[in-house]
Amino acid sequence: MNMTRLDKQIAFIVELDKLKHIYRQSVITGTNRHETDAEHSWHMALTAMVLAEHVDGYSIDVAKVMKMALIHDVVEIDAGDTYCYDAAAGKDKLEREQQAADRLFGLLPEDQAVEFRALWEEFEEAVTPEARFAAALDRLQPLLLQYYTEGKSWQDHGVTSDQVRKRNQHTKDISMALGKFVNEVITESIERGYLQK
Amino acid sequence: MNMTRLDKQIAFIVELDKLKHIYRQSVITGTNRHETDAEHSWHMALTAMVLAEHVDGYSIDVAKVMKMALIHDVVEIDAGDTYCYDAAAGKDKLEREQQAADRLFGLLPEDQAVEFRALWEEFEEAVTPEARFAAALDRLQPLLLQYYTEGKSWQDHGVTSDQVRKRNQHTKDISMALGKFVNEVITESIERGYLQK
Repeated sequence: MNMTRLDKQIAFIVELDKLKHIYRQSVITGTNRHETDAEHSWHMALTAMVLAEHVDGYSIDVAKVMKMALIHDVVEIDAGDTYCYDAAAGKDKLEREQQAADRLFGLLPEDQAVEFRALWEEFEEAVTPEARFAAALDRLQPLLLQYYTEGKSWQDHGVTSDQVRKRNQHTKDISMALGKFVNEVITESIERGYLQK
Repeated sequence: MNMTRLDKQIAFIVELDKLKHIYRQSVITGTNRHETDAEHSWHMALTAMVLAEHVDGYSIDVAKVMKMALIHDVVEIDAGDTYCYDAAAGKDKLEREQQAADRLFGLLPEDQAVEFRALWEEFEEAVTPEARFAAALDRLQPLLLQYYTEGKSWQDHGVTSDQVRKRNQHTKDISMALGKFVNEVITESIERGYLQK
């Protein structure tokens, strides 16, 4: 089939719908329903918009962080959601996600495939200020959901505070204010019995 | 309570979670589940990223369109989703949504409350190229879902092609290519029996 540029773009956009089938471990507030990857990505992008001023020492490109947030989990359409505290499933995560990126971003016209792939790789490498901020938000957003659902999925998986502290340890390096806030949320989660010490 | 700037930002971010409780009429592909507003907003923001080049005659600020997409339905946390083909419910929509905007954006620090409110008002007014493009995408995204779910929610509500054409009539004014594409999707939806003539 001879697809036009627009055909390819639409094929990618339609394929994205499948990210609404991927359920995360996080439970949304006020219900027992698990969050979808699409919902998480939306929430993370908006969180970037709201909290960008807290990044220390860099004038970051907020639009780039938002773009990273929007696409960072797209590979999970093929690779599925790997729970961040599941070490076994984490082992072949990289390979599964690289194959997914080949197929999914490959639906786009070539220049956009390159652009989207580069954004996702930058996010995964977590070296640039934008990627480090995005990584911090990718941890902060579920931390807030955990706190406001009284640690529902921490308890389901027997997660400890050491694991949560480790997962959020780099937040302070990109933002002192957010690092301090994250520590307060973890401490209060332990005190309230939401999270094992 | 004396809330810091960060406290206010976090309160807004936590409140946003409720947009995942608002279900739209659109059904997502590959399931019978209705789409949430958060999912729709994510999909629309990514669609803006992919299709921005098709806007005619303007060099638009894509980041602004993405921001509009992310926040355009936030007022529905309080005001609920008003089905676009429900004329009766549409009557007090404006008032309900203005009150919702007061409360929801009012959770933010004042400068951000003003910024977010202005973005939402710009979207609602649909005058600037960014707002007109966002409006076109707010119609294109559900049109694609309708097509790929064989017109499920059109049929549930007895929607006709005249209504769908009218709702999408301004797309061609911001993008000839997308306007043509929308017409093709509508024509094919009628031919396939997804949409009443």
